[in-house]
Amino acid sequence: RVDGGRLWSSLMEMAQIGPGLAGGNNRQALTDADREGRLLFQRWCEEAGLTVGVDAMGSMFARREGTDADALPILVGSHLDTQPTGGKYDGVLGVLAALEVVRTLNDLGLRTRRPVEVVNWTNEEGSRFPPAMIASGVYAGVHTLDWAYERTDADGRRFGDELERIGFKGEEPVGQRKGHAYFELHIEQGPILEEEGVDIGIVTHGQGLRWVEVTLTGREAHTGTTPMDRRLNASLGAARIIDRIETITRAHGPKAVGAVGQLVFAPNSRNILPGKVVFTADLRHPERAALNSMAEAVKEAAREIAAALGIGVSIEEVGAFDPTAFDEGLLAGLRAAAERLGYSHRDMVSGAGHDACWVAKTMPSAMLFCPCVDGLSHNEAEEITPEWASAGADVLLQAVLQAAEV
Amino acid sequence: RVDGGRLWSSLMEMAQIGPGLAGGNNRQALTDADREGRLLFQRWCEEAGLTVGVDAMGSMFARREGTDADALPILVGSHLDTQPTGGKYDGVLGVLAALEVVRTLNDLGLRTRRPVEVVNWTNEEGSRFPPAMIASGVYAGVHTLDWAYERTDADGRRFGDELERIGFKGEEPVGQRKGHAYFELHIEQGPILEEEGVDIGIVTHGQGLRWVEVTLTGREAHTGTTPMDRRLNASLGAARIIDRIETITRAHGPKAVGAVGQLVFAPNSRNILPGKVVFTADLRHPERAALNSMAEAVKEAAREIAAALGIGVSIEEVGAFDPTAFDEGLLAGLRAAAERLGYSHRDMVSGAGHDACWVAKTMPSAMLFCPCVDGLSHNEAEEITPEWASAGADVLLQAVLQAAEV
Ligand SMILES: NC(=O)NCCC(=O)O
Ligand SMILES: NC(=O)NCCC(=O)O
Repeated sequence: RVDGGRLWSSLMEMAQIGPGLAGGNNRQALTDADREGRLLFQRWCEEAGLTVGVDAMGSMFARREGTDADALPILVGSHLDTQPTGGKYDGVLGVLAALEVVRTLNDLGLRTRRPVEVVNWTNEEGSRFPPAMIASGVYAGVHTLDWAYERTDADGRRFGDELERIGFKGEEPVGQRKGHAYFELHIEQGPILEEEGVDIGIVTHGQGLRWVEVTLTGREAHTGTTPMDRRLNASLGAARIIDRIETITRAHGPKAVGAVGQLVFAPNSRNILPGKVVFTADLRHPERAALNSMAEAVKEAAREIAAALGIGVSIEEVGAFDPTAFDEGLLAGLRAAAERLGYSHRDMVSGAGHDACWVAKTMPSAMLFCPCVDGLSHNEAEEITPEWASAGADVLLQAVLQAAEV
Repeated sequence: RVDGGRLWSSLMEMAQIGPGLAGGNNRQALTDADREGRLLFQRWCEEAGLTVGVDAMGSMFARREGTDADALPILVGSHLDTQPTGGKYDGVLGVLAALEVVRTLNDLGLRTRRPVEVVNWTNEEGSRFPPAMIASGVYAGVHTLDWAYERTDADGRRFGDELERIGFKGEEPVGQRKGHAYFELHIEQGPILEEEGVDIGIVTHGQGLRWVEVTLTGREAHTGTTPMDRRLNASLGAARIIDRIETITRAHGPKAVGAVGQLVFAPNSRNILPGKVVFTADLRHPERAALNSMAEAVKEAAREIAAALGIGVSIEEVGAFDPTAFDEGLLAGLRAAAERLGYSHRDMVSGAGHDACWVAKTMPSAMLFCPCVDGLSHNEAEEITPEWASAGADVLLQAVLQAAEV
């Protein structure tokens, strides 16, 4: 078993970096806080005797050598970046639990046949630079490096420039490091495990996602003097589309989720009808056909509502991933490990996207969840217990031991 | 008649200050650009022999003495501040036409019995610091000075601090300068005059306004993992309320207008259900009872929609003015002047709020409009012709001559 106290104190130390306003974190990708968090992680890795490599997307790979120099490594990790109002565990737990696994191997003096690499994937959250999971996406060949470098944040800063600015544009070609298997521990971010009192979620699938960005073009005009029938009212259009997104989601059954978390009016003045409204529909479903149907329905509704109001509309998908199935063999190993350790477990589907969903395209991959309080995540109040964290890390340790072959 | 060429070239020179991105202006109240515009106006006033006083709200009064030292002055003016994406004429025309009136009196060597004061009211637009017309409101005793100083912009900067920063927190107590009458020339900001080919609008009334600011409190949560029925979805609430504002406005007959031009999500991330959504309904009607009914209906709808979604709601009126009737005697004078000069005219109601609406509480006041292209205002593309501007200034000159008594 791992040292749960050491894991917890590392989590708390990392949470000092990029503090939020309400007890959580704001350590968004490629900010100064992200840089500081990476440097702390790098120091910890070096103290644990690992060799840290950085690829051209800024993803960090901290390697513990195995006894067989030719064997492919076991990759274990997640991400250290957070939402603007994020929690202390989303992603961070997966990276620091992987580090704790390696620290435990060191304590036990155990040499594995395969190398073990602790991974910190760049910009998993995608809140500053959409899409989410961009670096694991480039790693998996889903996006090109050049395309990723051109992504911009709300202030127009380029991903490539910001990566260079924080000093983490690495030399290694992305995707060069192959792996034998990938494991990722994450908090559930949903309410099921806590409600059912289950210790470990065995993630059989990840649901799919579409980020449908809608740009409405109205006509800037005075709210007081412009007759109602002469308005090209983009704010009304946005309102109607957002309401319709709810209807469309509900119509796609109990597994569908959909909402709008991001929206900007321009020029955003109380007495100007907005000239432009931009927002993104976040649509998810565990089945590909249903997800496609949701996305098509939202696009159609946006076009129809815009046409009825005479406003312009343009639609761009700024993020997308298909539902993913994780590796049956690795999942069976996780279940067996949980049982050996005496932890209760259940199979489940991930509502969130994870780096593992992209990595699964390149090697056998599996995920496990630990509970989080009230299912709350993407909220500074996100919380877990030290016991939940160490139970997850214990199972991760067993899985790594088995896969890396002691 | 005035010198229309001189008026136009002053308009164009002022439009150099605080240029917008699309040919208009961004000279919002108490910015550096506002300061620069004020300094240019001040220089022009001094060159015309006027004495410039500034009150504690930053409103500027440029005085041309009359022959009777004890007579109350005639005030003529409007505002030099603009929307973030404003035009070159909204407000500016009224101030610079008043200056042109004085320049013409100088050219003609005319002494009036009453003094004439050209006024630039601070922060008419209210886009940076709501409410609109705040300085004329303090002048009219509608707001207190202390309350006005505490208004903040989106970045939390205080009105009082910003006024001091740009060097225009004057010594004069607000409201100290009394007047015998007030005139304000403004662009119509609506389509009627241009469509009907009429030169001058005689503004008999200003319609009333309510700015109803709605703050919805949802729960920040992951868009992918939070079950639909556990969401406290503030973005959906905002959408439904905005749609209802349209319905309520339409139900209040053809004179009612209502819309939302300003809205902010927090934290505004694609995969976070917003914890907070703030927006302002801009509601207007020329009749007080109907306006009150609109505002009540919107508040009720906001509470009802929020309750149905289980989200929190708080409502604050961040701006309001009642419908105003202008002075019959002055209006008759304006009509007569237009006729004498051979300009066509018609009576109309102002859809926008104007400083004249507050000043009317303290002295007989009247407004006149000139046409603007396509009724467009609060848009950088706002446009008028030099002929329209000088026709308005001609009528203003006649009205001032009559009221100030040559
Ligand atoms: N785990 C997680 O929150 N990932 C961000 C991408 C998503 O929104 O699912
Ligand atoms: N004239 C004008 O646009 N005033 C601003 C206040 C309003 O929105 O009516």
